[in-house]
Amino acid sequence: MATFADIGLAAGVNIITALVFLIAFGILRLQPFNDRVYFPKWYLKGLRSSPTQSGAFVSKFVNLDWRSYIRFLNWVPDALKMPEPELIDHAGLDSAVYLRIYLLGLKIFVPVSLLAWAVLVPVNWTNDTLAKSQATDNLQYSDIDKLSISNIPHGSQRFWTHIVMAYAFTFWTCYTLRKEYEKVATMRLHFLASERRRPDQFTVLVKNVPPDTDESVSECVEHFFLVNHPDHYLTHQVVINANKLAKLVKEKKSKENWLDYYQIKFSRNQSKRPMTKTGFLGLCGDKVDAINYQTAEIERLSQEIAEERERVKTDPKCIMPAAFVSFKTRWGAAVCAQTQQSRNPTLWLTEWASEPRDVYWDNLAIPYVSLTVRRLIVAVAFFFLTFFFMIPVASVQSFANIEGIERRAPFLRPIIEVPFIKSFIQGVLPGIALKIFLIVLPTILMIMSKFEGFLSISSLERRSALRYYIFNFFNVFLVTVIAGTAMKQLDTFLHESPAEIPKIIGVAIPMNATFFITYVMVDGWAGIAGEILRLKPLIFYHLKNFFLVKTEKDREAAMDPGSIGFNTGEPQIQLYFLLGLVFAVVTPVFLPFILVFFALAYLVFRHQIINVYNQEYESAGAFWPDVHGRIVIALVFSQLVLMGLMTTKGAAASTPFLIVLPVLTIFFHRYCKGRYEPAFVKYPLQEAMMKDTLERAREPNLNLKGYLQNAYIHPVFKNEDDDEDEHYNAKLDESVMVPTKRQSRRNTPVPSKISGGSSPSLPDVVHENSQF
Amino acid sequence: MATFADIGLAAGVNIITALVFLIAFGILRLQPFNDRVYFPKWYLKGLRSSPTQSGAFVSKFVNLDWRSYIRFLNWVPDALKMPEPELIDHAGLDSAVYLRIYLLGLKIFVPVSLLAWAVLVPVNWTNDTLAKSQATDNLQYSDIDKLSISNIPHGSQRFWTHIVMAYAFTFWTCYTLRKEYEKVATMRLHFLASERRRPDQFTVLVKNVPPDTDESVSECVEHFFLVNHPDHYLTHQVVINANKLAKLVKEKKSKENWLDYYQIKFSRNQSKRPMTKTGFLGLCGDKVDAINYQTAEIERLSQEIAEERERVKTDPKCIMPAAFVSFKTRWGAAVCAQTQQSRNPTLWLTEWASEPRDVYWDNLAIPYVSLTVRRLIVAVAFFFLTFFFMIPVASVQSFANIEGIERRAPFLRPIIEVPFIKSFIQGVLPGIALKIFLIVLPTILMIMSKFEGFLSISSLERRSALRYYIFNFFNVFLVTVIAGTAMKQLDTFLHESPAEIPKIIGVAIPMNATFFITYVMVDGWAGIAGEILRLKPLIFYHLKNFFLVKTEKDREAAMDPGSIGFNTGEPQIQLYFLLGLVFAVVTPVFLPFILVFFALAYLVFRHQIINVYNQEYESAGAFWPDVHGRIVIALVFSQLVLMGLMTTKGAAASTPFLIVLPVLTIFFHRYCKGRYEPAFVKYPLQEAMMKDTLERAREPNLNLKGYLQNAYIHPVFKNEDDDEDEHYNAKLDESVMVPTKRQSRRNTPVPSKISGGSSPSLPDVVHENSQF
Repeated sequence: MATFADIGLAAGVNIITALVFLIAFGILRLQPFNDRVYFPKWYLKGLRSSPTQSGAFVSKFVNLDWRSYIRFLNWVPDALKMPEPELIDHAGLDSAVYLRIYLLGLKIFVPVSLLAWAVLVPVNWTNDTLAKSQATDNLQYSDIDKLSISNIPHGSQRFWTHIVMAYAFTFWTCYTLRKEYEKVATMRLHFLASERRRPDQFTVLVKNVPPDTDESVSECVEHFFLVNHPDHYLTHQVVINANKLAKLVKEKKSKENWLDYYQIKFSRNQSKRPMTKTGFLGLCGDKVDAINYQTAEIERLSQEIAEERERVKTDPKCIMPAAFVSFKTRWGAAVCAQTQQSRNPTLWLTEWASEPRDVYWDNLAIPYVSLTVRRLIVAVAFFFLTFFFMIPVASVQSFANIEGIERRAPFLRPIIEVPFIKSFIQGVLPGIALKIFLIVLPTILMIMSKFEGFLSISSLERRSALRYYIFNFFNVFLVTVIAGTAMKQLDTFLHESPAEIPKIIGVAIPMNATFFITYVMVDGWAGIAGEILRLKPLIFYHLKNFFLVKTEKDREAAMDPGSIGFNTGEPQIQLYFLLGLVFAVVTPVFLPFILVFFALAYLVFRHQIINVYNQEYESAGAFWPDVHGRIVIALVFSQLVLMGLMTTKGAAASTPFLIVLPVLTIFFHRYCKGRYEPAFVKYPLQEAMMKDTLERAREPNLNLKGYLQNAYIHPVFKNEDDDEDEHYNAKLDESVMVPTKRQSRRNTPVPSKISGGSSPSLPDVVHENSQF
Repeated sequence: MATFADIGLAAGVNIITALVFLIAFGILRLQPFNDRVYFPKWYLKGLRSSPTQSGAFVSKFVNLDWRSYIRFLNWVPDALKMPEPELIDHAGLDSAVYLRIYLLGLKIFVPVSLLAWAVLVPVNWTNDTLAKSQATDNLQYSDIDKLSISNIPHGSQRFWTHIVMAYAFTFWTCYTLRKEYEKVATMRLHFLASERRRPDQFTVLVKNVPPDTDESVSECVEHFFLVNHPDHYLTHQVVINANKLAKLVKEKKSKENWLDYYQIKFSRNQSKRPMTKTGFLGLCGDKVDAINYQTAEIERLSQEIAEERERVKTDPKCIMPAAFVSFKTRWGAAVCAQTQQSRNPTLWLTEWASEPRDVYWDNLAIPYVSLTVRRLIVAVAFFFLTFFFMIPVASVQSFANIEGIERRAPFLRPIIEVPFIKSFIQGVLPGIALKIFLIVLPTILMIMSKFEGFLSISSLERRSALRYYIFNFFNVFLVTVIAGTAMKQLDTFLHESPAEIPKIIGVAIPMNATFFITYVMVDGWAGIAGEILRLKPLIFYHLKNFFLVKTEKDREAAMDPGSIGFNTGEPQIQLYFLLGLVFAVVTPVFLPFILVFFALAYLVFRHQIINVYNQEYESAGAFWPDVHGRIVIALVFSQLVLMGLMTTKGAAASTPFLIVLPVLTIFFHRYCKGRYEPAFVKYPLQEAMMKDTLERAREPNLNLKGYLQNAYIHPVFKNEDDDEDEHYNAKLDESVMVPTKRQSRRNTPVPSKISGGSSPSLPDVVHENSQF
């Protein structure tokens, strides 16, 4: 068991690491040549332009103004200064609500920490159980343990304090959760109400249009809605399977990048034309002139794209039995989205259309039966992934040890036997296999969600977050606590009685406090500080800048502002909620470490959201029910674990008092679900009617049909227009005002960031880049 | 363990009991004076009139026609003859679908039985495990056991037969279930589509109308719907709290019954005016002239009712924040019922109105928060009822034993010590406490459901059925199998591992086959045969006929046709499904006994539905998802139990094959739920639009508002009209044609059966009754 000194040392190391990251960030962000790495959001919004356009030559790259270094911590107040309404306007509601999760952590745990330190710590401290058992059993203990529940003697009356505290913490958590749910629901409704006109307010996605021998899908949809929603139907767009086309466009884009690269290379060294090989990854095949080859390839692809585009538009096989149906009023759309259309509930399925940039186009026409089967397959696959992922990892590890390598590749023996390399292989290789798996995990989970057939990027991320949370719960939390692989746990769960499991976990919880304190410091303190440094985007940006960037547009594409990453970020926060709630009663010492995490993360992510991230979509905080639900689960889990611990501590009389807590908590959850969840799922008719009436009064002659006609066109076809726009712009005199152009892009999502006109300062940029 | 001979004897006894019941029924039903007990449905429909109106005097009471006794089994083909569409027309869809549950039992278990006897019985029989263990361990076994899985040696390869059979049975059951779900869903949709115009097609129940200081509830509702459903809103009826009024009316009804009784008594014996006491139940208080007293009481109540009727109509406290809102079209109602109306999802809650006679008026205005709390309370109460009901029963039993009575009431000792009375007390009293509890149980469960706040009688019955099923599962099935009280089981479940529980149950299953065979014969054979005899209604009818009946109307009221009793009947069938599925693989001998039950019950209930029962409401088969879901649960349970049994039989290698079954079954269930359940919950817009269009074409000048104006009036106010009608009819010359009058009552429910005109043969009837 670690002593205060050990913890202090670990804390020191992590605090220093975090500080180093923060200072590095403080300095790097002041350098003009990093400006696009640390402030991409402002560039995308057109509110900041390259600092390279003015001033002395050196100062374009390095900040020589010593005064700015004094104020290098300025970003902290800056990040906090922006008020929430402005933040919503600036970065969208999703981001603002996401920040509220951290804030919720503070709201829950600050009073809990104060209460725990004021009441529980003295109660725990003023015992001598551990000192006695040290004297008798020669048991080692540390000061940390003296502050925990372990220091209370068996069967003591003092446990009633812990039970009362468990009640207090539960009530406070529930109270805060309810407040927050209410607040977020109001924010969401207000956001939706005060929004400008958006196509998704009028549009419903219709899936599983039944095949008809006499009519095309488009005619069929039109007839159906003209008959069944005669007063409200306006227009529709049939979904087209343009996946192949999208692939070709992507390929062309990549070839264009290579062409840029070779052209830049050639322009720097005119003596030698760059060569390439035509085979796999440019590693084998005939050697040819690179620029000519890529130009020819692009030519070929352009033609193929044009052909495919024609084919897609005419081939009935490419027309999917799904359509975006638009209505004359929001009321009509709300009605259609919430009702069943046809006798057969698997045909004419309607749901709200996500906003156009949130649509995940590939999944739009999966038939109903296939969906059920896909869910089954993914559920089984995820089960195996969670509980048996250690089998392949362990087999890779066993392959990657010294003996394994020597047996399979004897010729490597002389190298491996070098002491330094040997210790490296032994120490690092097994870990690497696991690490690689963990890095790839979110991608695997995302692929699972895509396979399962979700229709919007936001729901894909939400489902991945759920799976990641479950995985973390078993493979990070429980694996540490019960000290066995998830597979072993599965065995335990099957062969231990339901009354035994909370005991096993409950007893293990106080013993693992030190480990989790260290975990919080590494993952939660240094990790979050590392997030703000953006090391990977920094390096990639400069690499791209050097090799690929020819135009201002390219530079914009190179920025990679990233986004919040709900599917990995939220499960991480949830793990902290779980730890905080579980340790609150058992080891109150733990709580301050969590508080530091929540405060630091809030600060860092607020800064990132304001200056860096560019959300790909706006779901208006649709993820809050998930967040709320998982905190409730953590709360119930902590109550069960406490009950298990209490029974082993000779306080079995407390069980009836403790069993009330989960029952009440679960009913609290059901109440909240009924009371607030509909705000995240449905669209009240009253609201719709109000907006319709207002709009009719304001703009009586609005041409809604024109507005909605092309709102839900596959992005590939949008790019077509953009490409044409681009050529058109390029041909025009470059008189387009930059701010105006950018303003129009205010709502342009990342996926279409390749759009936009060329920059006026093209030659300059190339010149500058060549100075690196 | 019972031998074939034991089982044969039990079967003989029960078959004879059942036959006695059936023969008694066959004879009793031919007697004219029982006609109204065995054919009330036809009387209510007006298609049968009293046989007392014609023929000789004696033949009015006893059937002297010997030929009819020869054909006394005629009811069997008669019951089967009516085709299903006619049955639906005659008794409603609920009854027809209810019969399909028995039919489903036959469809599932006939092929399963054949297969099991063809394959499993020979496989089990041709072993000598039991014979061997008898030789070595002196273990007793019977021929029945030789046919069961117990006869297969430990770790034998023959278990693969059982696994294959488990697959076959599962697939067959699922296939049949899916077919049946599809069929019932189609029947429901067809029934709804071909129905006549009904008020509930146009009407939505709106609950939780927010209080408004400026407007009354009625104005508030009108404004809200005029704003938010401007093109569809037609009219509304505010819900009035008339519970007190209903109580007064009921009291008056009872007094009128007493008055009738005394008047008949007086008319028979004119020498002495009947006297009564004014106190509690007529047992204490002053002695007064009965006829005068009751007349005065009725007078008083009539006045109170009139006052209360005025008060209810004007007092704003009696107006509840709920209303039945009617729309111009079915489309409008379907839209309103399926969408969220207001920002706050706990206000303006809309749902389909049940048909007027299905509405449970008392629960119409329970606020949202109160509902959540009520659910919590009922859930906790039901938990305790299921697992701890034995505590009060046992304490009553301990009070009611010989020693207890002697200690508490020593003066009774001389009586108790009489050997016959002593043995009676010892043998019967403890059982009586339990029996009384079990008889009262459905009522308790119904009270729970009422307290929970359901709004229609059909949903009350469905919820009670669910609870009764759960209670049966733990307290009949598991108590027998694990041989301990439910409380002990709870302890087992908590302290045994999840892998252990199926083993415990699995091992116990084959040992309990004989008990359940006996259970099926007593409860399923003799019990069902007793149902057709209708002993209780028979006795009550004749008692009422003798003491109370003055008019034809009174006689109609005395009939008590009863109804299916879904809340007790369906859980009973489900228990048989559970038993059948659990024993199918383990002890195939069990299956024929179940088959007899399903066949007999189908026959009996078909007869009862055609001739006796009068459904109180029509929910169009809304209970089928429950039926389907519970059979699936039974199936999954049987698979888990088989898995547990297999592991103890040394066939652990089969576990992976068996674990696939529940996973597949659960996903089958999810598929069915998505595919068919919406047909029972929602009303497709396409359907609504179709009916609207048809109706508009057929009756362009329909006055819908007039039709809907008073459709949802509290039954107490309806009775008011009926009463007036009655007086009116009585005053009229009795020229109203009887068949016509009855025809109009075709859809009149039981609760309002007190309506209707007086009969033309009044003096006759009184005269006849006095002959008893």
